[in-house]
Amino acid sequence: MTKASRRVLGIDPGLTATGYGVVEETSAAVLLVASGVIRTRPREPRAERLARIHDGVRALIDRHRPSELAIEQQFVAENVRSAMAIGEARAAAMIAAAAARLPVFEFPPTAVKETVTGWGGAPKEQVLRLVMIQLGLVEPPHPADVSDALAVALTRLADARLADALARA
Amino acid sequence: MTKASRRVLGIDPGLTATGYGVVEETSAAVLLVASGVIRTRPREPRAERLARIHDGVRALIDRHRPSELAIEQQFVAENVRSAMAIGEARAAAMIAAAAARLPVFEFPPTAVKETVTGWGGAPKEQVLRLVMIQLGLVEPPHPADVSDALAVALTRLADARLADALARA
Repeated sequence: MTKASRRVLGIDPGLTATGYGVVEETSAAVLLVASGVIRTRPREPRAERLARIHDGVRALIDRHRPSELAIEQQFVAENVRSAMAIGEARAAAMIAAAAARLPVFEFPPTAVKETVTGWGGAPKEQVLRLVMIQLGLVEPPHPADVSDALAVALTRLADARLADALARA
Repeated sequence: MTKASRRVLGIDPGLTATGYGVVEETSAAVLLVASGVIRTRPREPRAERLARIHDGVRALIDRHRPSELAIEQQFVAENVRSAMAIGEARAAAMIAAAAARLPVFEFPPTAVKETVTGWGGAPKEQVLRLVMIQLGLVEPPHPADVSDALAVALTRLADARLADALARA
């Protein structure tokens, strides 16, 4: 039985730097399609920075044609101000996905670490190493801080794989 | 000397209810053009709720043609989760404004209260009363919880009036 390929855009939202990673699971392997960071300048007006993230995510969707978007559901922040900034960047990505009619899947950080490394409290380096192994990378993805975006995309693939297996059972 | 009229869309962002108020200052008076609330259902996916707020604000801009958007800069929230939700709703409104090329003006809550009532710690009822007086309303705006959206729009008008006066001096 052949399995349709599934392509996920993973997003690690941030007002200054939003990491992204596109991964695809085919019947043969899980592949890294693209990764990178959407950056905004702190001196720009807030609304323009958010529009830049929104438009950047929309451009990624148009270029790479993912079938879904995966993003972390964050519950921890240094303070209210940084929580709002994360929420704003998250919204920019989710609104771009909704406008492109992509389903959005949210995962808590512990679920991402648990899925990728087997341990919900895994350190960042371990997440990066397991992301590299799962994607068959011999060098860290570029730039290295896209690790979280790739991890949440891989979490969605694992989640979908489980749902498919349950549906077949 | 005639003064060009200035029309401001004020937004009080919230994931479940985003209040809005459109006010216009002409040479003769400050007028209430429209007010209301964009509501979303808690059961809907988060991305769709944000898209609904975004599209709702965009529709208001297209219908009422404001020259600018005013929104509160919030620094206080019950917890990280609610701070992120406020940030997300804020972003939805700001991205809609940026896409329509409207400048966005942000004001801290104390500045809004200070400007409208003369006291940065004024209670909600006092803000509502002063909003009614400034807009010449004999009854509370509908619904009453658009008071904060109108207050931030009036704050932007006061701010612009001051900037104009300084420019003339």
